[in-house]
Parts: sequence; structure tokens; C-alpha cells
Amino acid sequence: MIYLPLGGAGEIGMNCYVYGYGPEDNERLIVVDMGVTFPDMDTTPGVDIIFADIGWLEERKNRIEAIFITHAHEDHVGAVGHTFERLGAPIYARAFTANIARHKLAEYGLSESTVRVVGTFPEVVKAGPFDVSFLPISHSIPESSALVIEAGGEKVIHTGDFKLDESPIVGEAWDPDLWREASKGGVKALICDSTNVFSPVAGRSESTLSGNIEALIKDAKGMVVATTFASNVARLKTLAEAGERAGRSICLMGRAMRRMTEAAIETGVLKSFPKVVSPEDASGIPRENLMLLVTGSQGERRAASAQLANGKYLGMVLKEGDTFLFSSKTIPGNEKGVIKIINQFSEIGVDVVDDAGGLYHVSGHANRPDLETMHQTVKPQIVIPMHGEHRHLREHAKISENNGFQSIVAVNGMMVNLSGNAPQVAGYVETGRTYLDGSVQIGALDGIVRDRIRMALNGLVIVTVIIDEEGEVLGEPWCEIKGLPKTGRNNAPLVDVLEEDLDQFLRRANAKTIADDVKLERELKRITRQSSQNEIGKRPEVSIIISRLSA
Amino acid sequence: MIYLPLGGAGEIGMNCYVYGYGPEDNERLIVVDMGVTFPDMDTTPGVDIIFADIGWLEERKNRIEAIFITHAHEDHVGAVGHTFERLGAPIYARAFTANIARHKLAEYGLSESTVRVVGTFPEVVKAGPFDVSFLPISHSIPESSALVIEAGGEKVIHTGDFKLDESPIVGEAWDPDLWREASKGGVKALICDSTNVFSPVAGRSESTLSGNIEALIKDAKGMVVATTFASNVARLKTLAEAGERAGRSICLMGRAMRRMTEAAIETGVLKSFPKVVSPEDASGIPRENLMLLVTGSQGERRAASAQLANGKYLGMVLKEGDTFLFSSKTIPGNEKGVIKIINQFSEIGVDVVDDAGGLYHVSGHANRPDLETMHQTVKPQIVIPMHGEHRHLREHAKISENNGFQSIVAVNGMMVNLSGNAPQVAGYVETGRTYLDGSVQIGALDGIVRDRIRMALNGLVIVTVIIDEEGEVLGEPWCEIKGLPKTGRNNAPLVDVLEEDLDQFLRRANAKTIADDVKLERELKRITRQSSQNEIGKRPEVSIIISRLSA
Repeated sequence: MIYLPLGGAGEIGMNCYVYGYGPEDNERLIVVDMGVTFPDMDTTPGVDIIFADIGWLEERKNRIEAIFITHAHEDHVGAVGHTFERLGAPIYARAFTANIARHKLAEYGLSESTVRVVGTFPEVVKAGPFDVSFLPISHSIPESSALVIEAGGEKVIHTGDFKLDESPIVGEAWDPDLWREASKGGVKALICDSTNVFSPVAGRSESTLSGNIEALIKDAKGMVVATTFASNVARLKTLAEAGERAGRSICLMGRAMRRMTEAAIETGVLKSFPKVVSPEDASGIPRENLMLLVTGSQGERRAASAQLANGKYLGMVLKEGDTFLFSSKTIPGNEKGVIKIINQFSEIGVDVVDDAGGLYHVSGHANRPDLETMHQTVKPQIVIPMHGEHRHLREHAKISENNGFQSIVAVNGMMVNLSGNAPQVAGYVETGRTYLDGSVQIGALDGIVRDRIRMALNGLVIVTVIIDEEGEVLGEPWCEIKGLPKTGRNNAPLVDVLEEDLDQFLRRANAKTIADDVKLERELKRITRQSSQNEIGKRPEVSIIISRLSA
Repeated sequence: MIYLPLGGAGEIGMNCYVYGYGPEDNERLIVVDMGVTFPDMDTTPGVDIIFADIGWLEERKNRIEAIFITHAHEDHVGAVGHTFERLGAPIYARAFTANIARHKLAEYGLSESTVRVVGTFPEVVKAGPFDVSFLPISHSIPESSALVIEAGGEKVIHTGDFKLDESPIVGEAWDPDLWREASKGGVKALICDSTNVFSPVAGRSESTLSGNIEALIKDAKGMVVATTFASNVARLKTLAEAGERAGRSICLMGRAMRRMTEAAIETGVLKSFPKVVSPEDASGIPRENLMLLVTGSQGERRAASAQLANGKYLGMVLKEGDTFLFSSKTIPGNEKGVIKIINQFSEIGVDVVDDAGGLYHVSGHANRPDLETMHQTVKPQIVIPMHGEHRHLREHAKISENNGFQSIVAVNGMMVNLSGNAPQVAGYVETGRTYLDGSVQIGALDGIVRDRIRMALNGLVIVTVIIDEEGEVLGEPWCEIKGLPKTGRNNAPLVDVLEEDLDQFLRRANAKTIADDVKLERELKRITRQSSQNEIGKRPEVSIIISRLSA
């Protein structure tokens, strides 16, 4: 049996793991999760979403038996629509996850039947040589599941994302007996979530929040607005019920908020939820009797939180004395967006409550002591850390080895053979990232995004030169600038200086240079950069356009 | 007396405060601090540094008596070089701060005499109607000072950045008696640092770190590398002395590290420091006897930390078993850069120790109880929060009012009259940000940076059309793309599709359209965007270049 992470091992995001069984280089394969990660301005400006490069899988399309999705978070399910046609294997998921996945496939015009809904352990999906079971585990989204994967008499357990919550409000509680049952007969390897390995204290249950949240709402004078991940259906229920008990009507705002609660109700995951009012009806309710549950806990610019901070969303306007609760943790990288919103609310006079005190949010991932409990429950031969940056994987492997388990830090592209006495690196596979950019999938190394970053950092000069039928420069070169100061030293217009310097060069250039596109372009670029450096202290990107009139 | 923040009130960074005294609209002015803030890719790609728009001050140049710099952090002194000639007033600072300021002015060819070195309270600088004293206070840089500002019998104290440290290792300790002395006769307003207002527990002294750091170094097997802000001379001393006691030679790496220690020695601030070895000599020392102090605690790409994480810096290479200590806090917004370095070290096998446990770093700013101690020591009529985002200012004002002080949230541009029975808003001044971009100062609203961001998000199409002497389109339009996928739908080259669509339009366009630059450009842009949207699902920026051949 082999294990090969293509995404998610060495980063938190774009999970994509492969298991193989069979003769070397001809293994039958299953894929676990097909997630996305999100772009940022620093490294991926203009990109819509990012997922693992599945080139290796695509080349082995005929060997893929199935794709299994552990849960419906974007970093696990987000890329199913974008990759399905390239892989063509059936997708298996539990009902809630399948509901979300089907909406993603529908955007590509794919039918519902591409996703098959399956039950839980001990129910088994047969996929070639693999027997796969969905083993329920608590997390911050309904129906998160580990996978019990067996082939050729060997068993591995892939935890997916998890926490050990014995009273998770929505969905199945952590059930150590069930896990021991699933581990019977010996587990070769536990491939295990590493996100919170640096959190030293055991995690808290979702059920610990309800009292704190209710107290906060009861104390609030004006409107109460709370944000969390829309997919955290348990939290929505906790928030909404606390609001209801405090005598407030509940209104859901933001597309994802409605989408997730619909999915939870359609699939029977959410059996009871306070009655909600529409945004239109909400505006007629006194603010001290109203509670909004809104999207945008990560400061996303177009989500409800950011729009409320900007002034207005669906007719709602926050005022001095209102309370805004972040029932969420800010993911590293999103701090600036979140802080911006907090300051905007501060300007309005809205009291913002965040997770600083730990009263209104619990993590969905297992902390270090919980990871150790998991190891001891499954008692595998090997612990393979996944779902973490390198630092998380390394720490998790250290802990595992200290507790007597074999372990290996397997990063994206590292194929590990699990079948021997100890895990062995069986080879390295080329991996990377694919960017969805508009409607086109581009490679991270295509240079497209690099060019955008350069234009953003350096600005751009466009130089146009026309050369006539006789090979003579026609008129003067023409410069346009984008993203550069209009004037430089001595307040002279930058384009005038550039045009003059280029014109001087062209007047002196010999016919051979003028006739040679490559040489001419190189020289014009050099002069433009040098002249810009003198004028504005910056070497811009330069596009040279040479138009040759044909006789 | 009026108070007018131009930068630093509503943000952490680019501090610039104005005090005025005299008849309305004809006050004599002093400026306190002239700092910078740093650009980011999200909002200011390609910009070098950012400082407050001093247009208002420049228009009142003849009314400015002096500029006072409280301490040598970049957000307080960083813009002196870039703004000096526009304001032309003498600069006053204590010796260490002056040393740093002079180097910045020297870059603009300005002489040492532009900065006047002054002593501390009760020594007074006369600046028009103002008497100004530098009142020592502890912070994370030597010689940080509050300013005691008196005019017309009214006294305000501007704290600058501070913490209450009774044993700060380097520089003056918090001296409440001295502060009570300076406050004698009554203080109208305390303009007070707000950075750590959300930290509920009293701050710890610099001197609490030494034992923890020494224990860490003694336990370390391989090389020890520590990073902190180079300007935190006390921390450098603590680190170096702990290293020395643990039997290690100390080597400073990074330009700022050497610059700051030089300034501290030249000005007598640093009286003793362990002997340091050069990087060349360090490479001959066994790694278990070596400790490096390096720049780059915020993950800055070109600093020593990042270069060591990438592989090598000045001949030094880190290895498995080495220890890297972040003796620093990551400033919000810098998380990604710092985490990247930590993961790179993890890949090498270097053990990274950060501030998670609070053992190896203390903040340079006063926490909430310390702010209250400051209020009670000075006992002003009014507390005006500064040096904070809006949320910090608001919280600080709340605390002040709860403790019986008058307070006001005064943000950048809000002019406050301090002389009445209560602080009153006397008017609003247009403020903003100035970007240093290469060698040019540009306004934040000039649209230059906006164009860069647009190119980064949307990519660019350059369209060239040549129109001959008869007003006919010569040949076909020519397209070039930058930062866009080469092929779109059906794998057709994007430029081919664009050129064909544009050509079709031009063939059908009437002479009036062709003759009208504005109209022609608008139409060509529209077609280019629409056609791109169809092909690649993205509407790019478009530059249209129409060359008209003259008869």
C-alpha cells in the first residue's frame, strides 16, 4: 500500500491525498479529498482559486477507482468541480458533503449522479482492491468523517479533519468505542490531522459556548450581529438558539449562510433550528429584539460583515450601541481584513467582541493531547502527519515517535510505501499548484502571475515604434505609462523624457540594429529602464511594440 | 493650545502630531515625530515607504518653530529625510535618536547641524511660544522620551511610545517621581500611547528575560541564532550577554544590527556589550560555541533571517540541530513572511522557538494597567489617546472616562482645542498619505498605485492600431498580453481571437468612428474586454495605442 500526498502536506489547504495498492507503478488508486486554497495579493494576484496540480493523477486516470471526500470544507471539496472531468472517477461522500459537492459539479453542468451518497462504518464502499468506510468524527462541519481504508489485508485510517468532541451540538460525537472497533485487527498507519499540534491544552467542546454566548446577547443593548464560518452549522445553531432564548428574532445574511443551512436541513443533519426572519422582515423588528448571523468572519471583502462595516447590507445599518461578535478565529493571513472591519465598527460605535478570551469560539481541530488520545485509541504501527505546514508535520512526527510510534514527515509529492516493517520513501512525484484564473486553469510556474506581480511592483512603460517600408523609423517613438508617476526629477513629464531619450538613440542607431527586432527591442528596453531610473528612481517593466509597415 | 494628529491616530505607524499655540488660524506650530509606515502588496504594491501627507504643514511652513523626535523607531523618525526640505524647521532630538536621524538626512545631502541634540527634563528647548522638555521613559529603544510641552501657561505631556519598566537593561528606568515632578502645576492633557490597551495584564520588565534566554541557549546543542528588532539595543545586550555566559562567541549579522549597535556605542547609550566576532571569523568557530544575532524578525525578505532560511547568509549555513529564536512579536500583517521562514527552518531540521510562551520577549508598550498608572501619575484634565487604530483609541478613551478623566477620540485630521473647560473639535484638516515610490513622492489618491493593482488583478492587453494618411486602418490590429493566459477556450491563442474580433470591428467601422480617437479607443476597449471575457473568463485592463501616420 502506498500513500502519496499531492496537496495538504506542507501547507494548510488544498488537500489531495492518494492511496495505491497493487504492483509497483501499476497500483490501483483512490483519491481522498480534492480541495482548494485561496489566493493572496502577495503571491497570486488576480487568481480565483488554487488547487493541487493533478497532472500525475490525470496521466493515470485509468487506474483511479474512486474519489472520497471526507467533509465539505472548501479545502477538501472545493476543487471537485474543476477537476472532475480530468479524472472521471466516481465521487463518494456522505449526504451533507455530497449535497455541497453536487452544487459544485452542477456549475460545470455535471449531473447529481456523479456523487454517490454513502453511509457510515461498518458500511463499505468497494473501489477496486480497496474497501473504504466512512468513520464519523467530530469537526466544525456536519458529517466530517475519517476513512478506514483496507486493501490486501492491510488497513490504514485517514482521519480527515477532526476534534474529539463528546457533545458537538450537531452531528456525531467522538465515539472512542466505535474507533476501537474500526481499528480492530491492527492499523498499519494513521494518517492524521496536524493543524493544532502546537496547542498544548486539550480542546473544548462546542457545547461549552452556549452559556457564554447567551450571557453576551442578554447583556447587549442594541442589535447583535454574529459571524462565523457558514459551514459551522453547530455554531449557527448555538448562536441562533442563544439569540432566541434572549428574546431575539434570528436573521441569516449572506449567500453561504443560507446555502449551508439549506443543505443541513435538506440532508437531515439539522433537525431543529430557531425560526428565521428574512432581511426584509428584520428591518421592521426593534434592534434590541434582533440578531443577525452573517458571513465574512475572515474579513472577506464582499461578505456581509465587510458590507455592514462599510455602511449597509440588505437594508441593515449598524449603529452605536450594537454588538458585533466574531465567533471565529482569524486564519493567519486574514488579520488585516478582519482588523479593518473591527476599526470600521469602532468608528460607528459598535462594540466588537472577538475570540481573545476564548469564550465564544472553540477550534474544530484536535490539540496536542487530543492527537495523543487519537494515537492511543487507534494504536497504529505508523503515524503519518498530514494537514499541516512543515512545522506542524515535523512536530506531530516528533510527538508520535516520542510515544513509541513509527512516523515519517511525508510532504506533497513524497510517495511512501506503508507495507514494510517501517514506512519507506518509494519515490518522488512532481507536484505543484494549479490556478483557476477566470475560466482558465493555469500552472503556478507559467509566468503569468509573475508578470502581474512585476507590473504591480514596477509599473509599466509601453513603447511603440513604427518602421516604414524602407526600414526607416517613422516619426518619433511613442511612450505610454501605466502605474508610474507622471513626472519625475525637475517635474519633467516622464513620457517626454523617455521619448526624447529613445528618439536620440533611434536617430543614431544603424540600419542593422533597426532591422533586427530582437536587438532593437533589447536596446529600447535598456534605454527605457535606465532613463526611468534616472527620472523616477525605478526600473519599470517595458513592453516594446515595433510595427513594421510592409511595402 | 491646539492638538492636531496628521498621522498615527487611527493607525499604528507614520506618527506625525502637531501642536499649535496662538491666535486662531495663525497659531505657531511645533511638530512631534515624522514617521513612516510600510507598504504591502494588497494596497501599495511597489511603493517604498509611506508617510503622512504634510501638505497642510507645508502651506504653513513659516509658522513651524521646530520638529521634535521622541525616539528613533522608523514610525517616528523614518520620514525626516524625505520631508525636511519641505518644512525646513530645525529638528530636536536626544543623542541616540539624533544619530539615527542624521544618517537619514545625510542620504539627502543634508548636514549634521539640521538635527540639534538636546538633554532631558528639566532642560528646555524654546521654540517660539513653546517650552519643550524631553522626559525620559522606557520603551524598546534607547532614549525614548515623552515631551513636556508648555505654552501660555498651559502644559501638555505627549508620552511618545512607552512602557513602565523599572529595570530596562539599557537606558532610563520608569521614574514616577520624575514624572510627578514634570506634571507639577497641573497637566491640561496627556496625549498617550494606546498600542497595548487591549492587553489586560501589567507589562513585564526587559530584565525578566535574561534567565529564560540563558537557559534556552545552554540547552541548545548546535548553533544558536536569535532575531529581534535591531533597534532594541537592550534586547541585543540581553541576548549577547546570555550567549556569552553560555560560552558562545557573538556575531552580529545584518546591516541594521551593526548600524544600531554602532549608534548606541557612539552616543554612549551602550556602555558595555560582549565582544563580537565578524561573520568571517565566525565561520571558523564550532557551531556549539557560536551565537548569531540577526535582522529580520518580521520575516523581511532581504534580511538575514530570511536569507539563512533560504540557505546561506555571509557564509553561514544552518543545519539540523541548530536553534533559531524569535525574540520578538510578529506585527499583524507580517505573519505570512515569518511563518514561511519557520517552515523553511523546519525543513532543514532547525528548532524554532517563538514567543508563544512569553518567555523570550516582552512588549515595548504599556498594557492597560500601565496606562492607568500613567494616567494616575500625571493626573491630567484630559487624556487623548494616540498611537493606535480606531479600536485602540476608542477603548483607551473609554477607560480614561471610566477613571474620571475627560477624553476624546481624535483621529488624523481632527484639530482639538485643549484650552477650554473640555476638549473641543476646532476643525478638520485634510490628511492622507504620501508614498515614496522610487525617488518620487506621490499622493495616495493619484491613481498610480490603483493602476498597478488593476494590472495585477486583471492582467493587461495592449492593442496597437495604425491608421494611415488617408484615415484608413493600415493592416490589422496587433495585440500583446501581459499577465494573461496565452490560450483560452478551445485552446485558441488569446491574441489571435482578440485580433480577429478587433479586425472585424475595424472593417465594419465607419470613417467617423475611425477618425475619432476617443470613440475608437472606447470601442476597441469594449471589444477587447468582451472578447477576453468570452475566451478566458476575465476582463483585463486594456491599453489602446492608435498611431496616426501624418501625410
